[in-house]
Amino acid sequence: MIKHPLAKALTLSLGVAAGSAMADNLMERANSMFEPIPKYPPVIDGNELTQAKVELGKMLFFEPRLSSSHLISCNTCHNVGLGGDDELPTSIGHGWQKGPRNSPTVFNAVFNAAQFWDGRAADLAEQAKGPVQAGVEMSSTPDRVVATLKSMPEYIERFEDAFPGQENPVTFDNMAVAIEAYEATLITPEAPFDKYLRGDTSALNESEKEGLALFMDRGCTACHSGVNLGGQNYYPFGLVAKPGAEILPEGDKGRFSVTETASDEYVFRASPLRNIELTAPYFHSGAVWSLEEAVAVMGTAQLGTELNDDEVKSIVAFLKTLTGNVPEVTYPVLPPSTANTPKPVDMIP
Amino acid sequence: MIKHPLAKALTLSLGVAAGSAMADNLMERANSMFEPIPKYPPVIDGNELTQAKVELGKMLFFEPRLSSSHLISCNTCHNVGLGGDDELPTSIGHGWQKGPRNSPTVFNAVFNAAQFWDGRAADLAEQAKGPVQAGVEMSSTPDRVVATLKSMPEYIERFEDAFPGQENPVTFDNMAVAIEAYEATLITPEAPFDKYLRGDTSALNESEKEGLALFMDRGCTACHSGVNLGGQNYYPFGLVAKPGAEILPEGDKGRFSVTETASDEYVFRASPLRNIELTAPYFHSGAVWSLEEAVAVMGTAQLGTELNDDEVKSIVAFLKTLTGNVPEVTYPVLPPSTANTPKPVDMIP
Repeated sequence: MIKHPLAKALTLSLGVAAGSAMADNLMERANSMFEPIPKYPPVIDGNELTQAKVELGKMLFFEPRLSSSHLISCNTCHNVGLGGDDELPTSIGHGWQKGPRNSPTVFNAVFNAAQFWDGRAADLAEQAKGPVQAGVEMSSTPDRVVATLKSMPEYIERFEDAFPGQENPVTFDNMAVAIEAYEATLITPEAPFDKYLRGDTSALNESEKEGLALFMDRGCTACHSGVNLGGQNYYPFGLVAKPGAEILPEGDKGRFSVTETASDEYVFRASPLRNIELTAPYFHSGAVWSLEEAVAVMGTAQLGTELNDDEVKSIVAFLKTLTGNVPEVTYPVLPPSTANTPKPVDMIP
Repeated sequence: MIKHPLAKALTLSLGVAAGSAMADNLMERANSMFEPIPKYPPVIDGNELTQAKVELGKMLFFEPRLSSSHLISCNTCHNVGLGGDDELPTSIGHGWQKGPRNSPTVFNAVFNAAQFWDGRAADLAEQAKGPVQAGVEMSSTPDRVVATLKSMPEYIERFEDAFPGQENPVTFDNMAVAIEAYEATLITPEAPFDKYLRGDTSALNESEKEGLALFMDRGCTACHSGVNLGGQNYYPFGLVAKPGAEILPEGDKGRFSVTETASDEYVFRASPLRNIELTAPYFHSGAVWSLEEAVAVMGTAQLGTELNDDEVKSIVAFLKTLTGNVPEVTYPVLPPSTANTPKPVDMIP
C-alpha cells in the first residue's frame, strides 16, 4: 500500500492544530488501510492507454452489435449514467433472460484484483470476453464479433490505429484489450473520502468520521480496504452467521464453481465499496435494496455483531463519502452497418 | 417553404460562372423543393428550449427507470450513437417483445409534421408518452413515472427549474414536454446536401447531382420534399403496385388504425430521408436492409418505374449526401434511486 506523499505532508503540517490529535490519528489510521483514487487512469501492464485505443474501446463499450440481438452493449448493464451498473437485482440479457448475479459497477473496476463476483477473470480484458459470449447476456461468438467489426471500414481503420504494426488487428482479443483500456479511464476521483485521505480534515463531518472509525474498529476493513475498499480478495459470505436464502441463494456457491474446492463454497470477492450509494441493490444476489440493511447484514453475517441503528447510520454516512466524480462521457458515434454486417439474430422474419 | 436567403444570394452570384447554368438550374430547382437543416434547433410553440429543460429532457431520454423493467430508455430504440434508431427491423421492448414497426430516427424528428409511422401523435411531446406506456415497449404508467421521478430529490429540483412557477411541476405531461425540448436539439445540420442548398456547388459530385436530378425528375419529391425530405404527409404504400407481404405485412394497415377510413388502408407517413444511410433496415416493416433495394422498391411500388442499376446507384449516392453532423451528446449522470423509488417490475424474487 502506497501512501500519497501529499497526504503525509498535510497530515504532518496539520498535526499541530489544537484539538486535531484524534482526527489526525483517525486520518493516519485511515491512510494505513485505504488509498485515494488517483486523479488519472492507472498504467496497465501490456496495455498502453493510447487515445486511439481508448476511443475505440469506448465505441465497443457502447456497441450493441457486439450482441447477437444488436440490442445489448456493455453499457446496458454497466450504465455510465447510473453509477456504472444497471440498478437491477440481477441483469437482464439476451431474450430477457435473467443473469445469476448482480452486475458490478464498471467504475474503478480497474483497481480490483480480479473481475466478476467469483474473480474468475484476472483482468478487465479477460472479463470483457465473458458477457459478449454468455448465452444469458450478449449471446455472441468471437467469430461473429470479428465478422461484425470487419464489416465496417471505420472499425478496421480504428483497430489499425489502436494496434499499430499488427498484421491482423481486428481480433476478439484486441476488442477486449480496447475495452479494458477504455474501462481503465472510468475512475471516480475526488470523493470526499479521497480529499480526507489527502489531508483535508474538513472533507468528512463528525458523523462520517464516526462511521469511518467504526468501519475500522469493527473490522469491516478485514475485507474492505485498499483503494477500492474491497475487490482484492475472497471471503465466505456468512463467515459467522449465514444469511437466509433470500440473500444468499443456495444454488450459487460462488468461487467454488471456479476452484472446485470445498472451502470455497459461498466464497465471493469482497465487494468494492466505491460509489456504493449509487449501485443498489446490494450483494451478488442483489436482494437488498437499502444500504442500511446491507450494512446490518454484514455486521451479523461477517462480524457476528449486531450493529445498532446509530452505528449503521454512521457507517452509511461514511460510505456515502466514497462517491466520487463520475467521468464525463461523450456518446460515441458508431459506424453504420454494411451489407456484410451479420444481421441481428432472431429478428429476421 | 422558406428558401434560405444565403442560398438565394449565392445562387445568383455564382450564376455568372461559365458552364454552371445547368448546375444552377438544378440548385434552383432543389431549393424550390427542399430546405436545409437549420444550424440551431427550431422554436417550438409553447415549449421554450431553456437549458434547464433541455438538460432535464436529456436525463429523461436516457432514463431506464421510465420503463417498468428499469432497463429500457428512449435511447434504447432511438440510439444517438446509431443514427438515432436501433438498426433493428422492429424494436425489442419489455419482456423481449417485438414491436410492430421499425423505430424511426429521433434525429430531425422535430421537423416532421407528425410522429409515428401513422402520424398518430401531433408532436414529439405527445409521441414521448406513447412508448413509455406501451406494453411492448417500456410498459410503464403515468402514475408510476411520476412516483419514480418524485422519489429522487434531484429530479424534483430539476423539474422546478425547468418549469418555473408551476405548483406541481413533476407531471407525466411535463416529462414529455422536457423530452420534446431535448429531442428538438437532436438535429444534424451541415450535410453535403445542405451545403449544396446553401450555394456550394462543389458539395455534391456529379453522380450525386445526377441522383438529385433523378430524385426530382422521377417524382420522388411528390412525397419526399421539404427540410426532412419526407415526414410531412401520408401516402399509400403500394400506390402503383403493392409490394409483397414480406415488405408490406397484411396485418399492419397503417393510418387506417388511426382514422378508420377505408382510403387510409396501408397509408403511412412518407419516411423522412435525412441520414437514411445510418438507419437501415428500411420501411415500417424494417424488412429491407439495403438502401439500393429500398430505392428500387419505391420505384416500382410508388412510381410504377423500374429504375435501372445506374439510376438506383445515383439516387443512393444522392441520399448519402443527406447525412449530417450528428449532435455531440454528453451522457447524463442520473440520480440514484431512493427507498421510495418503485422497484423494477418482474425483477424482485
